[in-house]
Amino acid sequence: MKNFVFRNPTKLIFGKGTIASLGREIPEGRKIMVTFGGGSAKTNGVYDQVAAALAGRDYIEFWGIESNPKIETLREAVKICKREGVDFLLSVGGGSVLDGTKLIAAAIRYDGDPWDLVLDGRLIGEIVPFGDVMTMPATASEMNLNAVISNKATKEKFGMRVDYPRFSILDPQTTFTLPEYQRACGMADTFIHVMEQYMTVTGESPLMDRWSEGILQTLVEIAPKVLAEKDDYDVMADYMLCATMGLNGFIAMGVSEDWATHKIGHELTAIHGITHGHTLAIVFPGLLRVLKEQKKSKILQYGERVWNITGGSEDECIDRTIAATENFFRSLGLKIRLSEMGVGADTIAEIERRFNERGAAYGENGNVTGEVARRILEEVM
Amino acid sequence: MKNFVFRNPTKLIFGKGTIASLGREIPEGRKIMVTFGGGSAKTNGVYDQVAAALAGRDYIEFWGIESNPKIETLREAVKICKREGVDFLLSVGGGSVLDGTKLIAAAIRYDGDPWDLVLDGRLIGEIVPFGDVMTMPATASEMNLNAVISNKATKEKFGMRVDYPRFSILDPQTTFTLPEYQRACGMADTFIHVMEQYMTVTGESPLMDRWSEGILQTLVEIAPKVLAEKDDYDVMADYMLCATMGLNGFIAMGVSEDWATHKIGHELTAIHGITHGHTLAIVFPGLLRVLKEQKKSKILQYGERVWNITGGSEDECIDRTIAATENFFRSLGLKIRLSEMGVGADTIAEIERRFNERGAAYGENGNVTGEVARRILEEVM
Repeated sequence: MKNFVFRNPTKLIFGKGTIASLGREIPEGRKIMVTFGGGSAKTNGVYDQVAAALAGRDYIEFWGIESNPKIETLREAVKICKREGVDFLLSVGGGSVLDGTKLIAAAIRYDGDPWDLVLDGRLIGEIVPFGDVMTMPATASEMNLNAVISNKATKEKFGMRVDYPRFSILDPQTTFTLPEYQRACGMADTFIHVMEQYMTVTGESPLMDRWSEGILQTLVEIAPKVLAEKDDYDVMADYMLCATMGLNGFIAMGVSEDWATHKIGHELTAIHGITHGHTLAIVFPGLLRVLKEQKKSKILQYGERVWNITGGSEDECIDRTIAATENFFRSLGLKIRLSEMGVGADTIAEIERRFNERGAAYGENGNVTGEVARRILEEVM
Repeated sequence: MKNFVFRNPTKLIFGKGTIASLGREIPEGRKIMVTFGGGSAKTNGVYDQVAAALAGRDYIEFWGIESNPKIETLREAVKICKREGVDFLLSVGGGSVLDGTKLIAAAIRYDGDPWDLVLDGRLIGEIVPFGDVMTMPATASEMNLNAVISNKATKEKFGMRVDYPRFSILDPQTTFTLPEYQRACGMADTFIHVMEQYMTVTGESPLMDRWSEGILQTLVEIAPKVLAEKDDYDVMADYMLCATMGLNGFIAMGVSEDWATHKIGHELTAIHGITHGHTLAIVFPGLLRVLKEQKKSKILQYGERVWNITGGSEDECIDRTIAATENFFRSLGLKIRLSEMGVGADTIAEIERRFNERGAAYGENGNVTGEVARRILEEVM
């Protein structure tokens, strides 16, 4: 096991009717900005619950943080926060709204262009405190310090580290109106979050392996119900908990991490606007094929424990395990080939170029370079 | 899934050589009391590492917090803290030293007798901050707010809730000198901590079930090595991590809890001084037998997933599962019958009397009364 430091101060408030407790979690006397996405909060009833919980408090609303939140939009929010003296942020929506809100929280006390903070985290100083009502299980942004911010002008998308939410309120009932495609992408996102922390080296921590496998097993078990039963409280609660636990540090103690699938996926989103979780479902099987030798023993363990794949040669087991993974993504209703998504060889060449330009060396062994990224993408063409 | 609030602010610093980072974790300018147990810190080198890390800091030492920490000892420490103006506590040792330290932290700012706080947690006001160097995996006190305190005069032992450590430093190397019996009791303690949060209702959270089973599976896998290989770093790291994760709230989200085994076990320790983890290994199989019907589907799930027990009738599977659990405790070198420990029918009668006196109604269904406790103990006579 590797040395590690674990700390996660977020207060997780989970369950039916919990939005009503919102007011108690925000200190008195704060000037609050409540951030929203495109308007689903108004149709699914969350807006009304939040407004009721904030009755009598001093808050303004900011609408329109899009998926893959754009720096162009966030700059506007930062301007308003500075003008209005906002000193608490409340994100209401999914991971994109919360990621955008984290950037706003970091930029309010910064004098330059907020995009600077995305490019160079060392510029982040004081961060305005924030909390959230999370309505879409996927990114685990509600219990980690990460944000991923896009730049429309430059077609770039980068991850950054900001801070943990003070609190996160998750009421699974808020997910009942989520469309099937978002459910599918969210499950793929969670599945690959786990894989980035699990599909590396064997034997570093038998416990963390079990916990990662536990999330994967649960996702595989509940996925058909998440898609078919729109308003099954327990199923959506299970799914939300899996998503939060998938990227809050709980399965990363003392183990190596990969993250190459995310780095490649971010490019597909930046260039083609493909939904984040969907890009991961496309890229990951290609990565497993190209890095089959390096990840051999972990693929075998994963295949046996999650898919019950045993017997036959190691190569056969690995092939069946990768096929089972692809079938799982197909079963979510996702296309898993670049050609099905209208992505061609020119994009692959562009991603290779970008990786080379920045001297990319991703993955647990630092060997996912531009050339390896190209081979991974060619595998899933 | 039940509604829940999860929050665990402890900073966990885990790995080789981490005691050296101690100084950075305690704010400057504090008057520190360092608390110790019976002297093993001097023989295993931990004392020297702590002293080096605290060089130049203003601290005093308090030695002699015993296993099942006694209020009689802790009163002395509280007196010294008040006299010396101590405003930070550092526990160096196992769960007993840390539990005792938590009580001291709560009592420094309290004017009455510290035992009052054990009997009535509502009397706890300001708590002096504390951290720890944990040298014995078992109680998870390093990442929870619990303490268990004993009273020599009244032969009582009660749990209480105090606060989370600011930080906990775990270097698995500090466990290399632990005697076999303490390793065995520590593993039994962790095993039953998990059971108290798992062996209740089926289907409340498939993910929490997997995570609980993950700890149990890991313990079963590593136990022979923990006993046989005194200084295998990775094995002891795995064991330490299991112990911490066994009772820090990570496997308790949205699920029912039991804790009847602990309530009965505490009485065996209070009356006979039997080591805590050992009492649990004795009591738990009896509880499974007596509450077999109530816990049937969870016992079957546990048997299948942890012990691979399938086939035959449900009753046969349950019997084999309980036997496998007992064999596991035997394999740790523990006696698992009261008669082997010199505990007789008079103790059973006394525990029944104590439970009745306080109107005991323990367990997830509140049905472990004095009479049920008696039947549980008679099963393991």
